[in-house]
Amino acid sequence: MVITLLSDFGDLYPASMKGVILGIAPDANIVDISHSIPAQDVLAGAFMLAASAKYFPPGTVHIAVVDPGVGTKRRAIAIRAESKNNVIHYFIGPDNGLLIPAAGSIGDFQVFEITNKILYRDADVSATFHGRDIFAPAGAHISKGFEIENVGGQIKDFVALDFGKARRFKDSIEGSIIFIDTFGNIITNIHSEIVDYRPGDVLDIWNERIVFQSSYGLSGEGEPLALIGSHSYLEIAVNRGSAAQFFNKKQGDGLLIKT
Amino acid sequence: MVITLLSDFGDLYPASMKGVILGIAPDANIVDISHSIPAQDVLAGAFMLAASAKYFPPGTVHIAVVDPGVGTKRRAIAIRAESKNNVIHYFIGPDNGLLIPAAGSIGDFQVFEITNKILYRDADVSATFHGRDIFAPAGAHISKGFEIENVGGQIKDFVALDFGKARRFKDSIEGSIIFIDTFGNIITNIHSEIVDYRPGDVLDIWNERIVFQSSYGLSGEGEPLALIGSHSYLEIAVNRGSAAQFFNKKQGDGLLIKT
Amino acid sequence: MVITLLSDFGDLYPASMKGVILGIAPDANIVDISHSIPAQDVLAGAFMLAASAKYFPPGTVHIAVVDPGVGTKRRAIAIRAESKNNVIHYFIGPDNGLLIPAAGSIGDFQVFEITNKILYRDADVSATFHGRDIFAPAGAHISKGFEIENVGGQIKDFVALDFGKARRFKDSIEGSIIFIDTFGNIITNIHSEIVDYRPGDVLDIWNERIVFQSSYGLSGEGEPLALIGSHSYLEIAVNRGSAAQFFNKKQGDGLLIKT
Repeated sequence: MVITLLSDFGDLYPASMKGVILGIAPDANIVDISHSIPAQDVLAGAFMLAASAKYFPPGTVHIAVVDPGVGTKRRAIAIRAESKNNVIHYFIGPDNGLLIPAAGSIGDFQVFEITNKILYRDADVSATFHGRDIFAPAGAHISKGFEIENVGGQIKDFVALDFGKARRFKDSIEGSIIFIDTFGNIITNIHSEIVDYRPGDVLDIWNERIVFQSSYGLSGEGEPLALIGSHSYLEIAVNRGSAAQFFNKKQGDGLLIKT
Repeated sequence: MVITLLSDFGDLYPASMKGVILGIAPDANIVDISHSIPAQDVLAGAFMLAASAKYFPPGTVHIAVVDPGVGTKRRAIAIRAESKNNVIHYFIGPDNGLLIPAAGSIGDFQVFEITNKILYRDADVSATFHGRDIFAPAGAHISKGFEIENVGGQIKDFVALDFGKARRFKDSIEGSIIFIDTFGNIITNIHSEIVDYRPGDVLDIWNERIVFQSSYGLSGEGEPLALIGSHSYLEIAVNRGSAAQFFNKKQGDGLLIKT
Repeated sequence: MVITLLSDFGDLYPASMKGVILGIAPDANIVDISHSIPAQDVLAGAFMLAASAKYFPPGTVHIAVVDPGVGTKRRAIAIRAESKNNVIHYFIGPDNGLLIPAAGSIGDFQVFEITNKILYRDADVSATFHGRDIFAPAGAHISKGFEIENVGGQIKDFVALDFGKARRFKDSIEGSIIFIDTFGNIITNIHSEIVDYRPGDVLDIWNERIVFQSSYGLSGEGEPLALIGSHSYLEIAVNRGSAAQFFNKKQGDGLLIKT
């Protein structure tokens, strides 16, 4: 069974989570989605998980830990999400919204609070590292067939999170930046479904005239462009350069596209 | 069988070690502990290995390479460590102290010098990359059942290494910094066993009044705090910030805690 | 079967490639060679792939994506390379030279253009992420036994790439820098086969007198040295330091060694 891991841990801490998982589920195929989420950036973590989870096989357990509230009263949760054609994914992590967009990317989902101490690594849970002591063992047990109904009671008042809603007007679209990737590509919350630009259209964004293209390499080197990226959202990019640097923009900033 | 890898190699070099391992032990489950140890920082590598090894399953082989002395007369060693309840871990790497705290974290241990050329990748060992040519194949063979007694003779004069000993006085504790983690949390060599602070106690550290807490999120944002971290050592942290930056401290610096 | 991945993706994008691979080939043993290739640096990617591929077991499929031309007319290719003793490796990626030195490091090779849509992730291939939509599924299918002849037609006019040829004169060797590793070691294109220096020889490089050694630790701390590195090329290094910083050199720069 596949178990994915996502965190803001950088080095050191993911290794002990993997050790705990392999002690419970020796045949688990552990895949890192990322451990380089900016520290405590729940929104960036939620985006990366939602952008990746649906590409994994049915039955995958996704353990995600961006968890500034560890050791406070925030709850630990486990989610079962099911697509229209009955593909099931599981999500394990803190109740701070981190898992919600990814669960929604699969389909309908149910949320359970993890309270069953059988799942804990041992009786003496660290107050600072639930990734190792609760989430990793809970995920490993679920990947081995432990019934999610037995982790604890179902809850409806989990913390929600979304990336905002882009709005389409007559001659413009208003949205915001949800993520900057490694290349400096600016990923917006403007979904392809509300975009009807054609390659060659010229857009007015942040006081620049930008051509809408189908891929990066179709613009001149160093030139900005807009396109529908692989996540199905509108992206602003610079061919062989960083759009985030070119426009001096960051996650959360707004944008207005005029034609 | 699980094989962990730890090094200061960053990119490039770990891949050929993994290729060599999978050629010998195709079913090995290879887990990276870290390849981002600061270059030649044996102490940081020793801490990360000691902080992670014990969470892996019985029988795990840990291959670690922070090895400024490669190609000189420093020896290659293999260690068998056994816990009180007979859990065995193996450690493979250079004889420079890197493996010793981790071996001790499991239990009693025996050290063998690797001299049996059957274990080498081929007759022509590189003078600069024993990770690929000696440690990786030796670890892979041991994970497949090669008897550690046959790697070479047992040695008693291996290079030792520890993190110093914190000292407790009547109204104070004196220790030092052994590691700064990705979040900027300052991990000291003051073990929880010699600490009897209670949540809410106010400590005097580096001329700041710092509250002792049970977890990070219990202090105000940007406020420093002290706690027992997940490694069972006293940590100085800043809620949603970097204590290393806040206090301008680095690995090796001392601290005196007064109450 | 082993599948390696190499890219300039940094975070985020490798995870969905792994998800796609595991959906097709659940038993694949996926190994990251690197995802930290400098953005769009085909030459650096080609070097890292060529430096690593040959250490993997027979039958390994190497998927590599440094692909500034994605979504343009550049072709997708699959290569079968075979060594003199009949060890076969496969290489999947863009037709921009990235795969060629690695294929040559195995032995003779044949190149096929990937046009068979059966291999695509689904009918609707993204114009910006062939790693996920073409290369990952094609590689996964080949690792499961899909015949490479069936990916599409064989081509002879693939894009070639090499690291230049060092030239040996009577009292000197002229070459160039092909890679700077994590330690700042300068790896040149001067192969050990054309070098006959002996440990202790003094070389004149970039106006410095540098001793030729067999390993890093044999020079004084902070001293520059030359050696034959683990890739079998001449390297310039600084013991416990960065030669790239010491000499202020970068990939592509030339060097002339006089004795």
